[in-house]
Amino acid sequence: MVELDALLARIHPVDAAVGEESQRIFDLKTKPRRSLGRLEDLATRIASIRGLAVPPRLNAAIVVAAGDHGVAAEGVSAYPQEVTAQMVANFGAGGARETAAAAVAAGATLAEELAREGVGIIGVGEMGIANTTSASALCAHLLRAEPSAVCGRGTGLDDEGVKRKSEVVNRMLAANDLDPDDPLGALAALGGFEVAVVVGLVLGCAAERVPVVLDGFITGAAALVAARLSPASTGAMIASHRSSEPGHRLVLEALGLDPLVDLGLRLGEGSGAALVLPLIGSAIALLNEMASFDAAGVTDAGR
Amino acid sequence: MVELDALLARIHPVDAAVGEESQRIFDLKTKPRRSLGRLEDLATRIASIRGLAVPPRLNAAIVVAAGDHGVAAEGVSAYPQEVTAQMVANFGAGGARETAAAAVAAGATLAEELAREGVGIIGVGEMGIANTTSASALCAHLLRAEPSAVCGRGTGLDDEGVKRKSEVVNRMLAANDLDPDDPLGALAALGGFEVAVVVGLVLGCAAERVPVVLDGFITGAAALVAARLSPASTGAMIASHRSSEPGHRLVLEALGLDPLVDLGLRLGEGSGAALVLPLIGSAIALLNEMASFDAAGVTDAGR
Repeated sequence: MVELDALLARIHPVDAAVGEESQRIFDLKTKPRRSLGRLEDLATRIASIRGLAVPPRLNAAIVVAAGDHGVAAEGVSAYPQEVTAQMVANFGAGGARETAAAAVAAGATLAEELAREGVGIIGVGEMGIANTTSASALCAHLLRAEPSAVCGRGTGLDDEGVKRKSEVVNRMLAANDLDPDDPLGALAALGGFEVAVVVGLVLGCAAERVPVVLDGFITGAAALVAARLSPASTGAMIASHRSSEPGHRLVLEALGLDPLVDLGLRLGEGSGAALVLPLIGSAIALLNEMASFDAAGVTDAGR
Repeated sequence: MVELDALLARIHPVDAAVGEESQRIFDLKTKPRRSLGRLEDLATRIASIRGLAVPPRLNAAIVVAAGDHGVAAEGVSAYPQEVTAQMVANFGAGGARETAAAAVAAGATLAEELAREGVGIIGVGEMGIANTTSASALCAHLLRAEPSAVCGRGTGLDDEGVKRKSEVVNRMLAANDLDPDDPLGALAALGGFEVAVVVGLVLGCAAERVPVVLDGFITGAAALVAARLSPASTGAMIASHRSSEPGHRLVLEALGLDPLVDLGLRLGEGSGAALVLPLIGSAIALLNEMASFDAAGVTDAGR
């Protein structure tokens, strides 16, 4: 198991010079400069994370962390709590329930193992009935936001349910005397097992220079905890999509991330991260394979 | 070669009842209802085009039509005109230069042949130096818009170049006494070979009940001509992305299409259509493969 301090010490800012070199390579390709728009930004970002101007094709893994939430008893989800266990059985996943630090370490260890096995990009997802409440509480605390500004319909609440969720978040924050400078303490008090595992996955990816593709609001809340533990870890993050949860927009703004797609997804479970992996693969393939003006014998206007 | 009147007679509105049946199937799957957002809309739209509530995996083809534009001599592109031929050689494509109606027929014939070979979805692209000027003239005419409202930077014009392009479009419209009720006449006068081929591809797809994935502004202009020839053909169209050309937004609005991604692409050549094919594949795979609540033994809140 990794020690948190040792893990954080291994996370460094991404290499901007590599990203610039990568952009120069794009500028020589048979297309008007910058005409691939955000695909170029995406590929050069990945180059700077990996530390290679032309990173080879990335083997991808998706990790879906699952956890059970006592707060589900408060009626904050449209689904009964037993659905978590049913869904986890459905996933073929499982695992013991541990403390926040151990769960973070478990996530980081998993990221390291995957990197060692040759995985070059990791998508993260989660499953836990009522965990949008947990994520809302974390975000309200870490962003100093009103619970009513971050709480949304989750996977299907009506207006009354959203109001109840917001009140539960208020009670969660009032019941815990949280130190604003202790993100790990907030995670332990408000988080939930699967959120903590995702925090560890994000930090482990940043330490291993593996791009980590975030999913929706809950993985975003976990990424926010990771960013508070290690601001440099944001360099390794890629936002897949913008969910319909109001808190997600606030989280992405705080992380400085612009999601690749906006398709009204609100499922979680890694679905958004999985969806954009082909887009990311296309961006890397363009950087690797698209011909340059010289190689193709085409006249470049830009020179 | 297909006759235009016979082609248009074969295009019918898509089957909305099939799309509704498809949505009922989505509603039984192990997820909160509508939580896959626009992926559900996309899959049910394709179902309604194909006329099958659960269309099987679609074999995809991408057709890139290429043409040369005399208007390039007016300095409306950042690239010299010979780049078209160089790029076409680079594509490994080619073909004779024909009249508008014959080019439309050629596109429709190609769509029919691909459908007969088992292709279930067709992405369309184009290549032609100066063809954003041609597309801008078509759009300004068909949408009754000011040239300055539709003309943009194309593949790399500066402010002066955009102004010149707008003046050229004004001259093109003034020089041709165009009948607003004759889209084929406008295509012949303003269009260009590759734009006409795309018009035919779109109409052929609609006739064959094959979803047609549009690329950027120029294929959008071609789709607009197709929609004026056959309003029902819009039912078969899928917009891949929103390009940075100002005219593209107007075209998509006129066609009632909401693009899947917005990534600042301005390359054309089918790149945007190719990019979203995996998203479309994911949507169809979810409709085919995602477990239902009953099959997975999971409690559904919605019933």
